[in-house]
Amino acid sequence: MKEKILCLLKEAEGYISGEYMSQMLGVSRTAIWKTIKNIKLEGYVIESVTKKGYRLIKSPDTITPEEIQYHLATKTIGSKLMFFESVGSTNEEIKKLALQGENEGLVVIANQQVKGKGRRGRHWVSEPNTGIWLSLLLRPPINPNHASRITLVAGLAVCRAIRESTGQEVYIKWPNDIILNGKKICGILTEMSSELDYINYVVVGIGINVNIKTFPEEISNIATSLCIESKRLYKRADIVKGLLQHFEELYESYLETLDLSLFIDDYNQYCINVGREVKVINSEQTLVGQALNVTDTGELVIETNGQKEIIHAGEVSVRGIHGYV
Amino acid sequence: MKEKILCLLKEAEGYISGEYMSQMLGVSRTAIWKTIKNIKLEGYVIESVTKKGYRLIKSPDTITPEEIQYHLATKTIGSKLMFFESVGSTNEEIKKLALQGENEGLVVIANQQVKGKGRRGRHWVSEPNTGIWLSLLLRPPINPNHASRITLVAGLAVCRAIRESTGQEVYIKWPNDIILNGKKICGILTEMSSELDYINYVVVGIGINVNIKTFPEEISNIATSLCIESKRLYKRADIVKGLLQHFEELYESYLETLDLSLFIDDYNQYCINVGREVKVINSEQTLVGQALNVTDTGELVIETNGQKEIIHAGEVSVRGIHGYV
Repeated sequence: MKEKILCLLKEAEGYISGEYMSQMLGVSRTAIWKTIKNIKLEGYVIESVTKKGYRLIKSPDTITPEEIQYHLATKTIGSKLMFFESVGSTNEEIKKLALQGENEGLVVIANQQVKGKGRRGRHWVSEPNTGIWLSLLLRPPINPNHASRITLVAGLAVCRAIRESTGQEVYIKWPNDIILNGKKICGILTEMSSELDYINYVVVGIGINVNIKTFPEEISNIATSLCIESKRLYKRADIVKGLLQHFEELYESYLETLDLSLFIDDYNQYCINVGREVKVINSEQTLVGQALNVTDTGELVIETNGQKEIIHAGEVSVRGIHGYV
Repeated sequence: MKEKILCLLKEAEGYISGEYMSQMLGVSRTAIWKTIKNIKLEGYVIESVTKKGYRLIKSPDTITPEEIQYHLATKTIGSKLMFFESVGSTNEEIKKLALQGENEGLVVIANQQVKGKGRRGRHWVSEPNTGIWLSLLLRPPINPNHASRITLVAGLAVCRAIRESTGQEVYIKWPNDIILNGKKICGILTEMSSELDYINYVVVGIGINVNIKTFPEEISNIATSLCIESKRLYKRADIVKGLLQHFEELYESYLETLDLSLFIDDYNQYCINVGREVKVINSEQTLVGQALNVTDTGELVIETNGQKEIIHAGEVSVRGIHGYV
């Protein structure tokens, strides 16, 4: 009912009467009035004028299913969307749901993570109401050894969505960070449950720093937000909507060819490492060289001492030679 | 207390008095008597003679922690062991425990699985009290792409344990079945939860058909049990104990070198495919050739049309050219 009333308000040109809404939805005018009162409590500004009716003035920066699924142009990704005011972490939450048999496309999104985490269980700052903390559930019919490609698909989807809805010139730091002005504004944590040759599920956790205004001092030199860099606030639901749409499109392309060939040029264009000197660090050694490109199968090619080296995601950390990128 | 009394009974030469046990354990003679009554209900045959005391005549075929951990010579594997009369599947059960933070070495074992499963969720027959249905929890510091090697470690451990405690000449069908007289008596289902470059946990599910007397007709041409092939019953706890011990030893060797080099000769000796014609089936093609050997890194090498091909576990099914092996 809340969703339907919001939909009517959004689509009305000018005022819409309580009488009309009560007829459309087959409920009493009192029910309409009560629901609108509740909707206002969520931060929507709704004007009501005697004899004219109601008019939506402003939607709040909410990431509820009503806001995100309104005109969402996807078939699968986000068709089921679960919103939590607060969770431990969206990846932990969606992994439980995956074990219970939920289908590909489920999205879990939260206003706050109290135990947000990055790779290897590192702490991830996720203040309430200021970021996009979401996880996607996928069940791709691919070899588990190729799952890292999905991280690259997600990276390009985030990059496209942020550029489109905010105009901010973000880049991808291969394989799984999104960078704005040399600092990280988004991390992607891909987790998988698999047998030797079969994926039970993949969970893609995406954390985007949208309207966060400050970071703890110890990470403020490598972390930033869209708001800090551009001095304005953004509607999170718009970015989420774009993200889900771009992700679905790219993921479908990926499953068609099982490689990144259909969009690798775009990926390389936005990959901040390409053309730069990078330091590649794994458990055994550190390589320094020039990043040439990312291949159709998701590997980073670097040139070092006149030799080309192929770097697989998941084996290394990549840094700029003088700093983070 | 039950465990302690059983231990005293097993170690006694001849009879042991209730008086002595009550002093040793610091409990009343009534408590001793009551516990022995309960132990008998589990199938232990205990003779009691006035003025002499108690004597253990026969242990039942139980796989309770008391039976398995008695003189178990491992440091980690099985140091914590949880027994269930009946579970859905031991892998599902141990995965829940892994999410709750249980440590490497936990073993979950059950008398019955009501939803036992093989690879890709296929049904696995697991009748009550007749087989070994267990799962190991591991947290190896290795690259997720190398997890298939743990399946090979488990295969060799099962092979050694069965040969040692039953004398039956079982073989390994690369990568994850154990074969007796051309039929499957054991399957190994390795599942993993991972990030791109980091393993959260690996679960190794092992199902051994020990004392099962018949199989459904549709699988009786490919499945068998130790009992069917040798016309006798075996004590499951003895096999489990050997399995945990061999697994720990091989797993430690594996983690030392991160490859199978320290025991690959033994693996190849017991690998039924080596020296035979095999059919290798993956999603794209079928290769027919002679299996030459399994490498230090766990791949199967086959020769086909004069060319050597390297086959990775997890990408294929392997069959004999005329049937299952």
